[in-house]
Amino acid sequence: MLFDASAVIIPLLKQKTDILQPENISHLNGFASIWCSIENLFLSATAEGYGCNLRVPLGNEEEYARKVLGFPEDYFMPCFIGIGKPHKDIVPVKQKEINIKERIHWDTF
Amino acid sequence: MLFDASAVIIPLLKQKTDILQPENISHLNGFASIWCSIENLFLSATAEGYGCNLRVPLGNEEEYARKVLGFPEDYFMPCFIGIGKPHKDIVPVKQKEINIKERIHWDTF
Repeated sequence: MLFDASAVIIPLLKQKTDILQPENISHLNGFASIWCSIENLFLSATAEGYGCNLRVPLGNEEEYARKVLGFPEDYFMPCFIGIGKPHKDIVPVKQKEINIKERIHWDTF
Repeated sequence: MLFDASAVIIPLLKQKTDILQPENISHLNGFASIWCSIENLFLSATAEGYGCNLRVPLGNEEEYARKVLGFPEDYFMPCFIGIGKPHKDIVPVKQKEINIKERIHWDTF
């Protein structure tokens, strides 16, 4: 998927603390923010007729990307984003169907 | 801010592992996903003429909300979202200005 993409976007976040050792939820605020930005990027790209996919790095993939691209140690990479014009015969990913009424609770769970 | 809101939305995420002890980045995938959903909620609300604010819980605020609202132990609450019609004389939060050219790197950092 990424291999075939027209471009790969690597979002980077300046992360002052170790993302895998958060002391409290606020230490994940930057991580939360960058995922909001990534959602915006996906929505914008889709609105322009592009398609996106993403891969969360596994194992040493982040360090490999850091070495290849030369981004600093204090930048954290949440994912790889592939972007390009979707194939015409592409089958959109089927969303899991949910019953919204069962998911929304009012006043109490 | 939340106190004055017309409604407070509590997004909940079924989180199988301890969010503060992730073994790897993939353990934060659900946290990443819910923040994408929260961004969508903010965009949708804004498009409908509502205003939102949010607060990431500090200290025992999550446990207090859990007790009051009765949501299960395996649900994690990333934030409180206040929503309502903005005051007419509201001053929008000024975004920090950035130079996009300095932020986007091509091929190498």
